[in-house]
Amino acid sequence: MSLLMRIESALEHALLNGCGPACPPRLVAAVRHAVFPGGARIRPQLCLAVAMACGDEDPELANAAAVAIELLHCASLVHDDLPCFDDADVRRGQPTVHKAWGERLAVLGGDALIVMAFDVIGRAGGVNPRRMAKVLAAVAAGVGMPSGIVAGQAWECEPRADLRDYQRAKTGALFTAATMCGALSCGAPAEPWRAFGDSLGEAYQVADDIRDVAGDPAWLGKPVGQDAEHHRPSRAAELGLDGAVRYFEELVRRAQAAVPDCEGAGMLRHLVRQESLRLVPQELVPDIVRAVA
Amino acid sequence: MSLLMRIESALEHALLNGCGPACPPRLVAAVRHAVFPGGARIRPQLCLAVAMACGDEDPELANAAAVAIELLHCASLVHDDLPCFDDADVRRGQPTVHKAWGERLAVLGGDALIVMAFDVIGRAGGVNPRRMAKVLAAVAAGVGMPSGIVAGQAWECEPRADLRDYQRAKTGALFTAATMCGALSCGAPAEPWRAFGDSLGEAYQVADDIRDVAGDPAWLGKPVGQDAEHHRPSRAAELGLDGAVRYFEELVRRAQAAVPDCEGAGMLRHLVRQESLRLVPQELVPDIVRAVA
Repeated sequence: MSLLMRIESALEHALLNGCGPACPPRLVAAVRHAVFPGGARIRPQLCLAVAMACGDEDPELANAAAVAIELLHCASLVHDDLPCFDDADVRRGQPTVHKAWGERLAVLGGDALIVMAFDVIGRAGGVNPRRMAKVLAAVAAGVGMPSGIVAGQAWECEPRADLRDYQRAKTGALFTAATMCGALSCGAPAEPWRAFGDSLGEAYQVADDIRDVAGDPAWLGKPVGQDAEHHRPSRAAELGLDGAVRYFEELVRRAQAAVPDCEGAGMLRHLVRQESLRLVPQELVPDIVRAVA
Repeated sequence: MSLLMRIESALEHALLNGCGPACPPRLVAAVRHAVFPGGARIRPQLCLAVAMACGDEDPELANAAAVAIELLHCASLVHDDLPCFDDADVRRGQPTVHKAWGERLAVLGGDALIVMAFDVIGRAGGVNPRRMAKVLAAVAAGVGMPSGIVAGQAWECEPRADLRDYQRAKTGALFTAATMCGALSCGAPAEPWRAFGDSLGEAYQVADDIRDVAGDPAWLGKPVGQDAEHHRPSRAAELGLDGAVRYFEELVRRAQAAVPDCEGAGMLRHLVRQESLRLVPQELVPDIVRAVA
């Protein structure tokens, strides 16, 4: 089974639990709208890829960590799209949750996804409850205070923010949680996986900045030019498009070099290269291939 | 140490963890504004009271459950007060979080509190990780889908809702989580504590409906007449004020009768009676005393 099929199946299973007939039907619809169809599922696939590289010996816990990370990512998108933030109409080529189901169900749907994420982790502690507790802590660090994605988004509400702190929290923290939880789910130490997640997260954020300047809205499924419109800090604004592309290449190389020694190290390095090519506008791909091959 | 002092101290400790200098300062301020000064802290005190009645033999886990329940309650208040819901200006006698810190930090602050709640539970599993997993599941059931407080709030977005389903989810579910988690933190079975929590939750909701009709805004620290203004279902609207007061008395009696046999049963029944007198407008107290003495 591909990693993508594995995560889609685990997400479907997780949502079935909460979405029974006792639940208000529009909340169910809003939550499903937030999760399906998904984007690239890059964070949960990363979590599962690391788990497989470490032996994948508690696949239920690895799946739970991956599902939780994706649900939290979806929740953050739903809340970030709200009128008080980006006021976005379109996400993944379809109306945003608040456009489709109203602002109240967008707030509540995001809340429900956060709760579900931690519930899914808690239910996966049957075999290794102490490992489960470590996974929970790593996921919470990736999403909460002081430096998870909620904190990252909150830097947008400060008069001054360091670009690196902002992007590391807003995007990097959940990538770091993904690599660390992949290892933790196998009983492996998490720290050696931190630098790999950090570099990937920063690379992903820089690619996002590049796409926002040079991407095609039809390919992205969302409008471009949002960083400038919302006066958000951006590497593309700071370094120019060429400079941002060179920095992206450097981060991809750093991520490849940061993969710890393990049986699946070669597979992971290959995966990083493949994914990096999908993250930038297609006309930039030849440069990237040359740089990170 | 009183239950109230115990919960305040545990809340302060929990917030210190996330609110370090690495965190965006306005997010810290918004989160603290949501939690301090608190209301009656009735749910966490209930959780701790049940834990004490059951022997209180893992006080760290009992505290974590109580803190999580209060943080989730605070998060729900912050999000319910948002312009897209109640658009409330005042809560606990001070500006609501979105009035004080803006709508974006109210959304993010609520999200951060939900994450923190589960993080606090996860950290308290050192001695009994399997118990911790049960506490986590019970708290998630009280707050998430299909019938926790998020689902309760979502019933307000449906064209039709059963009043009992709505109130049980919106208010009752977190009371039930409080009684069950008090027991679970001591390794006691949770199910015998469900009916006690259910009755208390419903009593509290009916008292809230009564206060919204007959309360004094200065005493409550928030405006009255909100149920009618927002066309929310209410026992006071359904049964009239007298009918609602009689139903409240009946629920308090039911709660007292539902306390399971345990060393602290007498203490719990006394606590229920004391608290019930604080929940209704003072001119109604003589009737209530007569009814539930």
